[in-house]
Amino acid sequence: MSQHKSKRAKTEENQGANEFFPGINKIKYKPDAKPTDLLCYKHYNADEEILGKTMAEWLRFSVCYWHTFRGVGLDPFGGPTITREWDDDSESLENAKRRLRVAFEFFTKLGIKYWSFHDRDVAPEGATIEESNRNLDEIVDLALELQNKTGVKLLWNTCNLFSHKRYMNGGATNPDAHVVAYAAAAVKKGLEVGKKLGGVNFVFWGGREGYQSLLNTDLQGELSHMANFFKMAIKYKNEIGFTGQLLIEPKPKEPTRHQYDYDAMTVIGFLEHFNLQNDFKLNIEPNHTMLAGHAYEHDIVMASALRMLGSIDANTGSPDLGWDTDQFPMDIRGATAICKCIIDQGGVAPGGLNFDAKVRRESTDLADMFYAHIGAMDSFARGLRNAAKIISEGHLQKMVEDRYSSFTHGIGLKIAEGTATLQECEAFIKKAGEPAVTSGQQEKYESLVNRYV
Amino acid sequence: MSQHKSKRAKTEENQGANEFFPGINKIKYKPDAKPTDLLCYKHYNADEEILGKTMAEWLRFSVCYWHTFRGVGLDPFGGPTITREWDDDSESLENAKRRLRVAFEFFTKLGIKYWSFHDRDVAPEGATIEESNRNLDEIVDLALELQNKTGVKLLWNTCNLFSHKRYMNGGATNPDAHVVAYAAAAVKKGLEVGKKLGGVNFVFWGGREGYQSLLNTDLQGELSHMANFFKMAIKYKNEIGFTGQLLIEPKPKEPTRHQYDYDAMTVIGFLEHFNLQNDFKLNIEPNHTMLAGHAYEHDIVMASALRMLGSIDANTGSPDLGWDTDQFPMDIRGATAICKCIIDQGGVAPGGLNFDAKVRRESTDLADMFYAHIGAMDSFARGLRNAAKIISEGHLQKMVEDRYSSFTHGIGLKIAEGTATLQECEAFIKKAGEPAVTSGQQEKYESLVNRYV
Amino acid sequence: MSQHKSKRAKTEENQGANEFFPGINKIKYKPDAKPTDLLCYKHYNADEEILGKTMAEWLRFSVCYWHTFRGVGLDPFGGPTITREWDDDSESLENAKRRLRVAFEFFTKLGIKYWSFHDRDVAPEGATIEESNRNLDEIVDLALELQNKTGVKLLWNTCNLFSHKRYMNGGATNPDAHVVAYAAAAVKKGLEVGKKLGGVNFVFWGGREGYQSLLNTDLQGELSHMANFFKMAIKYKNEIGFTGQLLIEPKPKEPTRHQYDYDAMTVIGFLEHFNLQNDFKLNIEPNHTMLAGHAYEHDIVMASALRMLGSIDANTGSPDLGWDTDQFPMDIRGATAICKCIIDQGGVAPGGLNFDAKVRRESTDLADMFYAHIGAMDSFARGLRNAAKIISEGHLQKMVEDRYSSFTHGIGLKIAEGTATLQECEAFIKKAGEPAVTSGQQEKYESLVNRYV
Amino acid sequence: MSQHKSKRAKTEENQGANEFFPGINKIKYKPDAKPTDLLCYKHYNADEEILGKTMAEWLRFSVCYWHTFRGVGLDPFGGPTITREWDDDSESLENAKRRLRVAFEFFTKLGIKYWSFHDRDVAPEGATIEESNRNLDEIVDLALELQNKTGVKLLWNTCNLFSHKRYMNGGATNPDAHVVAYAAAAVKKGLEVGKKLGGVNFVFWGGREGYQSLLNTDLQGELSHMANFFKMAIKYKNEIGFTGQLLIEPKPKEPTRHQYDYDAMTVIGFLEHFNLQNDFKLNIEPNHTMLAGHAYEHDIVMASALRMLGSIDANTGSPDLGWDTDQFPMDIRGATAICKCIIDQGGVAPGGLNFDAKVRRESTDLADMFYAHIGAMDSFARGLRNAAKIISEGHLQKMVEDRYSSFTHGIGLKIAEGTATLQECEAFIKKAGEPAVTSGQQEKYESLVNRYV
Repeated sequence: MSQHKSKRAKTEENQGANEFFPGINKIKYKPDAKPTDLLCYKHYNADEEILGKTMAEWLRFSVCYWHTFRGVGLDPFGGPTITREWDDDSESLENAKRRLRVAFEFFTKLGIKYWSFHDRDVAPEGATIEESNRNLDEIVDLALELQNKTGVKLLWNTCNLFSHKRYMNGGATNPDAHVVAYAAAAVKKGLEVGKKLGGVNFVFWGGREGYQSLLNTDLQGELSHMANFFKMAIKYKNEIGFTGQLLIEPKPKEPTRHQYDYDAMTVIGFLEHFNLQNDFKLNIEPNHTMLAGHAYEHDIVMASALRMLGSIDANTGSPDLGWDTDQFPMDIRGATAICKCIIDQGGVAPGGLNFDAKVRRESTDLADMFYAHIGAMDSFARGLRNAAKIISEGHLQKMVEDRYSSFTHGIGLKIAEGTATLQECEAFIKKAGEPAVTSGQQEKYESLVNRYV
Repeated sequence: MSQHKSKRAKTEENQGANEFFPGINKIKYKPDAKPTDLLCYKHYNADEEILGKTMAEWLRFSVCYWHTFRGVGLDPFGGPTITREWDDDSESLENAKRRLRVAFEFFTKLGIKYWSFHDRDVAPEGATIEESNRNLDEIVDLALELQNKTGVKLLWNTCNLFSHKRYMNGGATNPDAHVVAYAAAAVKKGLEVGKKLGGVNFVFWGGREGYQSLLNTDLQGELSHMANFFKMAIKYKNEIGFTGQLLIEPKPKEPTRHQYDYDAMTVIGFLEHFNLQNDFKLNIEPNHTMLAGHAYEHDIVMASALRMLGSIDANTGSPDLGWDTDQFPMDIRGATAICKCIIDQGGVAPGGLNFDAKVRRESTDLADMFYAHIGAMDSFARGLRNAAKIISEGHLQKMVEDRYSSFTHGIGLKIAEGTATLQECEAFIKKAGEPAVTSGQQEKYESLVNRYV
Repeated sequence: MSQHKSKRAKTEENQGANEFFPGINKIKYKPDAKPTDLLCYKHYNADEEILGKTMAEWLRFSVCYWHTFRGVGLDPFGGPTITREWDDDSESLENAKRRLRVAFEFFTKLGIKYWSFHDRDVAPEGATIEESNRNLDEIVDLALELQNKTGVKLLWNTCNLFSHKRYMNGGATNPDAHVVAYAAAAVKKGLEVGKKLGGVNFVFWGGREGYQSLLNTDLQGELSHMANFFKMAIKYKNEIGFTGQLLIEPKPKEPTRHQYDYDAMTVIGFLEHFNLQNDFKLNIEPNHTMLAGHAYEHDIVMASALRMLGSIDANTGSPDLGWDTDQFPMDIRGATAICKCIIDQGGVAPGGLNFDAKVRRESTDLADMFYAHIGAMDSFARGLRNAAKIISEGHLQKMVEDRYSSFTHGIGLKIAEGTATLQECEAFIKKAGEPAVTSGQQEKYESLVNRYV
Repeated sequence: MSQHKSKRAKTEENQGANEFFPGINKIKYKPDAKPTDLLCYKHYNADEEILGKTMAEWLRFSVCYWHTFRGVGLDPFGGPTITREWDDDSESLENAKRRLRVAFEFFTKLGIKYWSFHDRDVAPEGATIEESNRNLDEIVDLALELQNKTGVKLLWNTCNLFSHKRYMNGGATNPDAHVVAYAAAAVKKGLEVGKKLGGVNFVFWGGREGYQSLLNTDLQGELSHMANFFKMAIKYKNEIGFTGQLLIEPKPKEPTRHQYDYDAMTVIGFLEHFNLQNDFKLNIEPNHTMLAGHAYEHDIVMASALRMLGSIDANTGSPDLGWDTDQFPMDIRGATAICKCIIDQGGVAPGGLNFDAKVRRESTDLADMFYAHIGAMDSFARGLRNAAKIISEGHLQKMVEDRYSSFTHGIGLKIAEGTATLQECEAFIKKAGEPAVTSGQQEKYESLVNRYV
């Protein structure tokens, strides 16, 4: 990319809140917008109350920093495509600070109240960990200032334990303890930063915690090291009084051939196996769920059923692709399913809907950043309205309750309570005989839901 | 199929051990066999000792009854293709007994020492559970007699809780408690049968324990019912003094859209969540592992690493297909990987290598049953020899140990033991600085293993 | 299933048009229907005119006979679940005729104007081809009578060349010429039947035209035999003056490991390779498209772009499953994409939207047949309205045209017309220099379309 | 990466053939090598004659320049991991030339006789096309010198029409004609370079010739532009007298959501549709074949069956992964299948086995480059020996011929020759009746082949 950017990059510091997106005003709710008027919310009305909370309170949207402010359009077959006037492509602190100001202008214009970041996205990595930490401190000071000024809060931060070449064989599960220690030192700083910025969660995504080949891997050892790594984090978090919720984000594979945090149930199993289940919840990303071979909303529903849903990385993939595309979620049916789950469990706080999504590599216009976020927010606004209507009218819930009504009495109740025996069940069958065949009525359920979508 | 079979079906009862496969003698070990001499073992030498056990003791091959004696070549797009002279297609007890005699002749001719079956495969389902149980008793009596006569043992039995229409919405997880009770009554009988026949394991494969649609499903309820169901089985097993190992067989999907026993880690997580982990181990089927998106041997290695590998359903699928094909395993590299895992954990007993595999729908010759089993047994014999050589020469193990050697001392040892803290890690890094970048050498490992395959 | 059905099966012949679904009246258009009122069309209004045609004319819905009147809920892991009062499970002609009467009552109550069938679905296979043909003739006579009486027409018929065991290794591509000849004889009859019933298309779905193993397959020979088979069909069709459009239905795999008609482009390539492209079009099934690794609407759009889209088997699968589920299509976005393609090419006639879909194995209620078809028809009605609005407002089309506007003049026009040379292109670049980077604006397009969905 | 490399980078020009890999001598054939002696060929014996050609003549190995000399270990989640002493990371011509000298030392030490490259891999892209061409000329002069000196030849070159941001929306199929013209200008130069270096093939891999979204794409237009693009290339090739074979390399997707050259049959269909089939053959990459949902060797066998197999990019992926990993092929069964196809068609010349494979991102040692290539070459040497034995012993071929023997006479011969009619087939069946059911014997074929693997 070019070495010399416009004058803007050099002079923006004296300028105001409308500096980096000069042609775009605060995005407004316009329910009557025409189809081509796409720089407004047709459906998202932040302060509108639905089932006792505002849309903003239910949805708790968050912008992710890495994709939206550090993504340049790289893919495995091509170089950067996205250039921004404010970014001089340097790894300087000055450039890092300017980007952060851009981000807060963007958050504010969208009216989004949360953000999320990785340590190495916001601040440049130094030659030593001390220098990296100093860089991070300087940026965090500015972030705190901007948070206070704008009212935007930190949904979560995380440590990037996968991009640097030192992590190529893993962070917490690296075969070299030296690297594990490095990752641990980074997490220590990450927890401190989370505390300082009032982060309401802290995420672990173990991108390289897995294997590329079983031949060179000590599975048992690596799983055990990963558990010990999390235990160190819990201990330190408690020592410093950081109150954010710890979250693990499952992903089945990519970049590794197998990632230990494969999907929601795998992570829950790991946590229970190592007795970590009380200190963690899950941050579910539907694109990862799809890659694990599940239905779009599966991991969200499964984690919620087991009381382990902590937060959501709202995005999507293309179901015909076998890699992570992190697209903006635009599907109304999917958004409805997620919102139904959120309402059913009384909200996702302290988690939120973090847009872990990037504009396509080919979406190089500045306005594309807005189209993407607005389109996704409107999709979830529609999903929320649909879900609220489904729930408040109660027809779906009634059908489900009727379907399981046999567990409220008799042998069903004993089974549900765990007090039945095989002998009792046999005696019941010898008396009651063959059960009736009862339709599952899937198409009826689908048609009913379609009436709301 | 035709109503009237040959005279053979009617007269076989007076006949001897060479009745049903008259042209095929006991399969022998012929290390010098020519390529076209396929009705012999070129590699499998049952009594040959390898690393302190015979091949038969390591491999513990088992023939599965359902595919090999009840499979008729049905698939979703076509009717039966396979007819056997001994089978008159009736659901009579006489036919069931004749089939069983065929099976034991087959086991004996192959020299295989274990078999496995579902309740409804060996004996016809009756109009009531009492009749079904009486049918089963009659067949089990014959099975016991044949076991005693031939020395063939029961690797495991299981209850078919998925084929009958009553189970269409699930067995243990059916929305109707009446069906759950029915499944429980069947398992009661299954455990009794397992005890009577001296079964060394008992398997649960939850083909319909899952969902077709999230819309009509109470996930939390169904998972809880499934756990309670297993608890009833444990209790009854202990009450009657049945000593077989309980096994769960994971599968990700098919016939349901999502099966709760998705893969090894999912089942382990489920077991730990409901505190069932001490009473169960896993029966891993590689074709299911492939369908879950993992490498062929992944679930075997993973279950073994967590001390939960109980038995193996030795088969394969085609990696380009998205459904269960249950093919006979013929890949030497895959067999080597499995055998290495078996030797590493000191054997798979009381489990075994059960051929949960069926001849292709198009493989309609009687001889195909032999080609298939022989080919698979020879593949595992080669795999066992390869694995034994890899292990006894020790080069691979040495490379892996070197790779993780940093965990034997200093900060690595503390991390491995779970006594390190984030602060200590940070202090270590501030002193030791940046870790070295160490090659994972995947291609070197692959080349080394290729020298043995 | 039980041998003796209710009296209804025996007495229905004297009865009227409201016999088999006595509680269900003709399905009506009720735009104000409540969510739970699911036995009506909320969106499908057959006679409503949209962009110059009625909804019925655009959509040309067809009920498929095999799933809806012959499906009993079999799957690879379970037996029949669905029983109908009118069906005595026999292979008698009487039973076949009664089913046909049921079907026409069903078509009429739904208000659907087309149907489709396989030869062996409507009439029982006989012991010889002569008997099979006689059976078919008798049923076809009744079908013609019922068509005339109700005004329902034949969208297409086809020959089942995959279910009978004779076809296990293929129909047209069987390694045994005897079987190929059998398949050819069946197609001869099928074309005659199509002519007699005024079928407007005739379909080939080559379920077993492919391979299970490359080891035993002569690829080149089989492809050549398949082409010759089609040439015989074309010749005979012309000889008898049957004017229906010949259609090939692509599917990538299942039941075979590889099906030669993998996807739209594969079939088009095959047709062109053997010079058959002028006599065939394609019948696209989106569930098959998904299994081939494409986006839901991909093959429809691709076939249409190459002027080869003949008809559509309107259904869906679950994107997380690797086998054909033939679910009723309920997704509004997908229906919109298909309808947009149909409108863009001026309609799909003589093809239609054939519901090659089955109620779930667990959907055992009679009413489920109605919920399923109504839900799918309403989904397409919404899709049609959406697509019509997108097209008539023209914003999307305008964006696409602008995107490609450089091909309307200068070097672009020469490239589009095929008259440019590499030398001219190089000269142009040496003068014009580096092209601008132009955003693809995917999210903007998605947001725009969401305004209509 | 560091700006200043060792002195080696600055002084190597005066040095000899053993400069860049000083500790590694020419790789020799050592059939008695121990398992840990991995820097030798245990199986590949270049000059050994097999079925009338040497191993080198059959296999025609080629090293690819991009992965092996430009790969630095980037992946979507991490930065470079691989550093080489000779590379100063600059885009200077000096650096480019040094890399080229390294490459020829590497080719020579391996004893590989072919190489392949992209234009932008060997020479730095300039600010203008004129500068890019000048850079390329300078490098090509050196390549010619090194080719002459070492005897290594050019298997093929190609133009990178996908990495630069100008190509983000496609090369030949870009919506902007300006970009298409740019791509055309690059291909003009590429053909000239191919001619100059005596390239025996020229490859097109259309990485961005496809779509990311159907919403913004004119499918029909793009396919037509692609065809016109190829026509320009054919014309120019003929004008300048370049005699290399033109090849298209199929890939289903990645980086685009759908690539127009999906798989072998798709490309063949495209070529036939636009009448290009006489000027092109296919370069098949098995990893791409796997991503298209086929068996490993499918596209090779299919292309060969249709006389369109031109060359092979010998690599593999992991079947459980949904993206291109370009691993070194180490599977003996797969190599045997490929070699059998090569021998069956009398060789792959003028194509070859090009290792379009990269050492894993974690394989950072210099020696890993050798382990990887040697391991793959030895795997193909074993595959070649296996295949030659299968073919020369003839048992497999005999079984296949017997299977299709009915097409050598009678109605089968008429079908094979395309002279049969439906009427004749019907008459034959009326006389001959029901065909026999004949086993496909898949397991027997598999067992037979296992005797050779």
